[in-house]
Parts: sequence; structure tokens; C-alpha cells
Amino acid sequence: MSFLKDSIKNFPIIKELNENALTHLLNIIRVRQYKNHGQIFSKGTSLNEIYFIIRGKVKIFNKDSCGKEQIVWIMQKGDIFPLEGFSREVTFPANAEALEDSIIGSIGVHDFESLILDNPNVLIKLFSVMNERIIDLQTRLEEQVLLERNMQIVKLLLRLCERYGEITQNGQCHLKPQFTTTDLAKMVGASRGSISRTYTRLIKEQLLYKDNVGGLLVEFEKLKEKFG
Amino acid sequence: MSFLKDSIKNFPIIKELNENALTHLLNIIRVRQYKNHGQIFSKGTSLNEIYFIIRGKVKIFNKDSCGKEQIVWIMQKGDIFPLEGFSREVTFPANAEALEDSIIGSIGVHDFESLILDNPNVLIKLFSVMNERIIDLQTRLEEQVLLERNMQIVKLLLRLCERYGEITQNGQCHLKPQFTTTDLAKMVGASRGSISRTYTRLIKEQLLYKDNVGGLLVEFEKLKEKFG
Repeated sequence: MSFLKDSIKNFPIIKELNENALTHLLNIIRVRQYKNHGQIFSKGTSLNEIYFIIRGKVKIFNKDSCGKEQIVWIMQKGDIFPLEGFSREVTFPANAEALEDSIIGSIGVHDFESLILDNPNVLIKLFSVMNERIIDLQTRLEEQVLLERNMQIVKLLLRLCERYGEITQNGQCHLKPQFTTTDLAKMVGASRGSISRTYTRLIKEQLLYKDNVGGLLVEFEKLKEKFG
Repeated sequence: MSFLKDSIKNFPIIKELNENALTHLLNIIRVRQYKNHGQIFSKGTSLNEIYFIIRGKVKIFNKDSCGKEQIVWIMQKGDIFPLEGFSREVTFPANAEALEDSIIGSIGVHDFESLILDNPNVLIKLFSVMNERIIDLQTRLEEQVLLERNMQIVKLLLRLCERYGEITQNGQCHLKPQFTTTDLAKMVGASRGSISRTYTRLIKEQLLYKDNVGGLLVEFEKLKEKFG
């Protein structure tokens, strides 16, 4: 229990809970392990639980009838999902699957509602998380409609850097090999060829480098200045 | 004042306010008239106010450097905007412009925050409005990534019917001539030619008819069954 408490007490939203509410959460949270590719929920099932990622990564995605996949979100440690549709009776609007071996906590939707409605700080934080998701989705939709494919991919790289990147000593942004060319393709609906061509172009312009283990080094500031 | 009260008291969110809170809102709300095409706010300005549409329609949109437009939302009577970014200091993520002669009320962001934080019913309603917007954006993003252009346009027509259509006596859905071919094109990032071609195809299949004044009659149920 104290391992769990230490793991989650600084998560966004959870850290806004007072001591009593946190103790209550720790009493009711169910913790499960998922292997890489393990299914957490599938599109169309009822929304009964809210999930907290304690360790690992989760992709939220849709698939068309031909098996073509679109990744809506990649969630990581500290993230809560799905927020869509909590507080009303709905079905999950997408699938969720572990992207690596993961530890995930969950509580019932109604328990989550009671927790947050009792606590204005949690509510304000939750509004802000939902607002960020709305702005993120609007931006991506805008990019899909207004931008050429190549620019969509550059913007995606910038977003991944902001969210998942680590700044190296010489100011580049390091993206670990967690995102494959296929993953990026599924995020913007491009072919893997388009992603590779954008990489090649950026490498030629010295805005992108590949490291030895499949990760990327992005000249984040230069890239942002040029295309941001 | 009583005209204003009668106009807005049944709006979503506002109807959840108790009598005191409603009276307070009516005391602080500023009401302005906008002509068709009148600018309400522009992208990049600070978010100081929350707007309520009392009469008319508003488009929330983005423009690229070549002037190409993407319509994010079309808001109508009873809608509140923008919700993105309220409760934190941000700039507007898009432009807003009246789509017809409109009457719009507004209150300061901080006044809005006080109103809603004092009232759990309002909060739950607001969550549900935000959730609907998140699900709507996710669906549109999914359609942009996974669907062919023609199907994107069909899905857009279905969405417009659900949101703005009126059911006629013979079960068709009537869309008034408020949405031009150009508007639809700007919503999905298609050319006007693509929209016209989809219309022609649906008219040939007797799933769509044009009325005499520029509106559309959609065989909503048949269209949904075939493509929904």
C-alpha cells in the first residue's frame, strides 16, 4: 500500500486530494498488471471504470473495418483515462491497449465522481486536463484539415517532443525508441513512407538525428522556429 | 431584463443555476449585438470572457497563412463558448465570428468560475458538455484519418442533421440553407467540388434532395443505416 501511495500521490488530479480522500482512494483502487499489447478495454463496452497509469504506457485507438488503425492518444504514467463520457452513461468511444508492460489502477466511475465532486481543487484540475485535451484535439483536427502531410508530421514530432521528450545536454530533444514509424503513421493517418520521407528531409536539414538504438534526437528549438 | 431572463433561463448549464445565481448572472451579463460576419474575438487574444448565444449563430474557425479556413464549431442559441482554457490563463485558440445577425451575452471568466464552482449541478452539466465536445472532436479526427473524403462528407451531413436538422412530416431531416457548400468544405477540409460530387451521388441514390430555397432534405435514417 505504501508503495502504491508513493507511486500515485504526486499524479495530477490525485495530488489535489486531501489526506482522507487519498486514503479512501487507496482503499478502493484495484491494481492490475498488463503485458505489452494487453487489452484494457475495447470500443463499445460500457464505461464502468476510470484508469490511472501507475507504470507503463497505453494507446487509445480506433480501427476501421480493414484493420487500419488511428491512435487517438498515447497515455503514460500519471495519466487518467478515459475522461470522455464520465458522469453519464456511455460506451467507450475507442480501444485501449498496453504499449509496454504496464501497471494500471482503476476505480468505479461513480466512486470517481464522488471523489471529485467533494473537492473543488480536484475539479479545477480536472477541468484543466479536459481543456488541454480539447485544445490538443482541436489543434490536431486543424492540422489535418489545413496542413500538408509533411507539415502534419513535423507538428506531430514537435508535440511528441513537448509531451514525451527529454532535453539532452546540448539542447536537443531526445525521443526514446518508444514511437515507431508505424506509430507515427497511425497518429496522423499517413503511410510509413511519408514518415520516412519527412525524417530524411529533416536529417538532411540537420534538424533530426537518429541515435544508435532507434530513438530520435530532434533540434526542437530550431524545428519550432522554422515550422512551429 | 425579463426578456433576457426568459431567453436564457432554459439554456443548458444556465437552467441548472438556482434562483439567486440566475439573478446574479442577469446582473453581471453584458449583452451585445453582432451583425452577420461581425468579429467576436480573434485567435491569440487573452481569454477574459465566456459567451452565451442568446440569438443567432457563431462560427469558431482557424485560418492558415494562405487564407484557407477550417471551421471548428458552429455554435447556436443556448451554446456557451469558448470552454477551452477557462480556469487558466490562456489565449483564444481560434477566431469567432457571427454567422448571422446575433445577440450574444458575456460574463468575465472569473465570474463564470465562481458561478459554477458554487453549484455542483452546473459542474456536472458542464463536464457533460465538455465530454460531448471531446467525443465530437475525437470522432472527427478519427474520420479525417481513417475515412475516404466521400465518407467524411456523409458523416458530416449526418452530424449536421443530428445537431441542426428538423424532422419533416415524412420523416426526412430538413437542413435550412444556413450551411453553404463552402461551409461544409471548410468543416472537413474538402474542396467545394468534393461536396458537390457527394451531393450528386446521394441525390442519384435518393438519399438527398434539395429544396427550392437552398436547403437540404436528408433521408437521415436510410443514410445512417447505409453509412452510419
